[in-house]
Amino acid sequence: MDKVPKTEIEQRVNRLQSILVEQGLDGALIMQNVDLFYFSGTIQTSVLFIPCQGDPILMVQKSYQRARDESPVKDVVPVKNKNQIGHTLKDYGFNRLESLGLEMDVLPAYLYFWCQDAFKGCRWKDVSKHIRKLRMIKSDYELEQIKKAAHILHKGFTDIRGIIREGMTELEVDGHLCLIARREGHMGILRMRGWNQEMTYAHVLSGESGSAVTFLNSPNGGNGNTPAMAQGAGFRKIRKNEPILIDYGAGVNGYLGDQSRTFVIGQLSSTLEKAHDCSKEIHRLLSKEAKAGAYCSDLYHMAVEVAEKEGLGDFFMGHGEGQVRFVAHGIGLEIDEYPIVAPRSKEKLEQGMIIALEPKFVFPGKGMVGLEDDYLVGSSGLERLTPTEQAVIKIS
Amino acid sequence: MDKVPKTEIEQRVNRLQSILVEQGLDGALIMQNVDLFYFSGTIQTSVLFIPCQGDPILMVQKSYQRARDESPVKDVVPVKNKNQIGHTLKDYGFNRLESLGLEMDVLPAYLYFWCQDAFKGCRWKDVSKHIRKLRMIKSDYELEQIKKAAHILHKGFTDIRGIIREGMTELEVDGHLCLIARREGHMGILRMRGWNQEMTYAHVLSGESGSAVTFLNSPNGGNGNTPAMAQGAGFRKIRKNEPILIDYGAGVNGYLGDQSRTFVIGQLSSTLEKAHDCSKEIHRLLSKEAKAGAYCSDLYHMAVEVAEKEGLGDFFMGHGEGQVRFVAHGIGLEIDEYPIVAPRSKEKLEQGMIIALEPKFVFPGKGMVGLEDDYLVGSSGLERLTPTEQAVIKIS
Repeated sequence: MDKVPKTEIEQRVNRLQSILVEQGLDGALIMQNVDLFYFSGTIQTSVLFIPCQGDPILMVQKSYQRARDESPVKDVVPVKNKNQIGHTLKDYGFNRLESLGLEMDVLPAYLYFWCQDAFKGCRWKDVSKHIRKLRMIKSDYELEQIKKAAHILHKGFTDIRGIIREGMTELEVDGHLCLIARREGHMGILRMRGWNQEMTYAHVLSGESGSAVTFLNSPNGGNGNTPAMAQGAGFRKIRKNEPILIDYGAGVNGYLGDQSRTFVIGQLSSTLEKAHDCSKEIHRLLSKEAKAGAYCSDLYHMAVEVAEKEGLGDFFMGHGEGQVRFVAHGIGLEIDEYPIVAPRSKEKLEQGMIIALEPKFVFPGKGMVGLEDDYLVGSSGLERLTPTEQAVIKIS
Repeated sequence: MDKVPKTEIEQRVNRLQSILVEQGLDGALIMQNVDLFYFSGTIQTSVLFIPCQGDPILMVQKSYQRARDESPVKDVVPVKNKNQIGHTLKDYGFNRLESLGLEMDVLPAYLYFWCQDAFKGCRWKDVSKHIRKLRMIKSDYELEQIKKAAHILHKGFTDIRGIIREGMTELEVDGHLCLIARREGHMGILRMRGWNQEMTYAHVLSGESGSAVTFLNSPNGGNGNTPAMAQGAGFRKIRKNEPILIDYGAGVNGYLGDQSRTFVIGQLSSTLEKAHDCSKEIHRLLSKEAKAGAYCSDLYHMAVEVAEKEGLGDFFMGHGEGQVRFVAHGIGLEIDEYPIVAPRSKEKLEQGMIIALEPKFVFPGKGMVGLEDDYLVGSSGLERLTPTEQAVIKIS
């Protein structure tokens, strides 16, 4: 099993420590499983204390043995329960912590109250934005993991051509994509950070399903097959001459790939073909323009401009209530990472960011077309991670 | 698509209102998607205000149209963002809310701060335990949904016999279980409420994989194929004469089934056979004893006693650091619902509870055997939801 290399963990901890010093904090308590994994290499039940300088301490409830095996952190100590955490830190000489950072965007209120109680008089600060910004820039190791995840998607998009048939339900196609992904080593979950946001393995949206609007912060909706999971595939049977939009995700060693392709049995209408061409045109343009130093807001407006020039502005990234205002997002350990290529973003792209660019078009009653691909941001533009066909994929 | 019936929603809201009155609260703000679904029938992005008396108000950010279609709540109103919620409630005559309940076990700290800011001077109380207790007792409608989910598992356990072969990876078996479940209508996610707890669709644990210890609050662990998702199936190839423990979940209209079966290609050792018989014996005993009025702690001790009499106490519900102290848990919209049949529980069983009883045995280096089945609690004992074979399932 692949473990996170020690040098990775050390660099990540060092980068957070610089931020802690800047923010005047004595340290941070890391508790969410994704951030735990990022800074320690394990998701075993634990609290990671990162002081503003010196070695971090991983205090583990369960499984201690597994955390010790998985984590390159030097000080891994067992604790029976959360109440031993304060004492353990005192044993390490941290007698008076006056200010600590927390992941307030995901930490449940009851754990915040526990922190207040366990470290009386301490000042608390939300460091979640800092952590998310720090995680934007990927190392070569992280890039390799995302490439592996993207290659699972490449395999899935290739193999599913031989499986999709007229009359098959969206759910069956989704199930096959899941089988392919797991067989190839997909870790079995797609993590999202946003409150109440969650994902199935794939969205298989045929015909008008592609224009169903959801709570998701995504141009994709889908009916699903119940209001209890109001997204993705349903019992609708796939027909000829309609778009089949497949948004597909997979994870390797925590890192996610996130891509979409448009399939059709037969032929798309000229409107839908034109919209898909427009999506490809936005990919071509941003592949050159989205380089280190470019403003996310500028890139978003460039994409909108292409859509509007084709008279497709009303359908770009959703329609009506379903329209969302971004065209790309970061991917990594979570599917909704920074940067967001959106009009209100103040962020500039930086070398080492990895983004999923997803210009899509939604036509009420007809469905969704578009192309989502994963790219590394470089000094002269975007570099594709996989060679998967970008045109509409025709199933004979 | 099935919607939650109006009478269901009305009864649930009424039951919460009785609690709000008891607790001296003016109302509750419901925000987590599962609780939103329970009290309103939709998971669209919204805040549900339930006053201590009178009609609830569902304030929807996205999708308003879909929430209105899905929810039987009378007052569904659109809001542009969270900041309109206070004003909307004022428009409905709630000018001065002095005390409100929140789901503090899941609500992120930043949303708690938002509440404090939006309703200045209000007193806040955690009502999550009350909501979870209220959700323990299932209506006939809810029982029907869980039965449908359990029938997907029945289909999966039946069909997978023809698929498992020596040399196949755990991940491939997991993928096939996923394909079957989705094809049959599994909604695509298994929700857990506990902090940092998450699930893949199935755990396929062959041989020593079954004895890997994890962070999960479950006797099942599994290696997975990465520390980033340290559970479930991995690339290990299935061999003859070793236990293959499959823990399988599926959801219909939000409601989950959760069962496990032990498979073998060839023959289990006599120790493992004996342990599986002991698991069945615990099922037989508790099927009679676990009736409305029985104390959960007594039932737990009865199960432990059976295991100890067979000399299997050290292996019951895990081994060493991995041993967990419960033998059954409630299922419903989440997989970790109340009641917990555990030594420290003060709860009595009540008619209409639905539990997954999962006496399992873990042998270090050898693996896991056991049986998990879903039952309705009645006045004279437990009633099984599906007729799936309870013995070790032999694959020829």
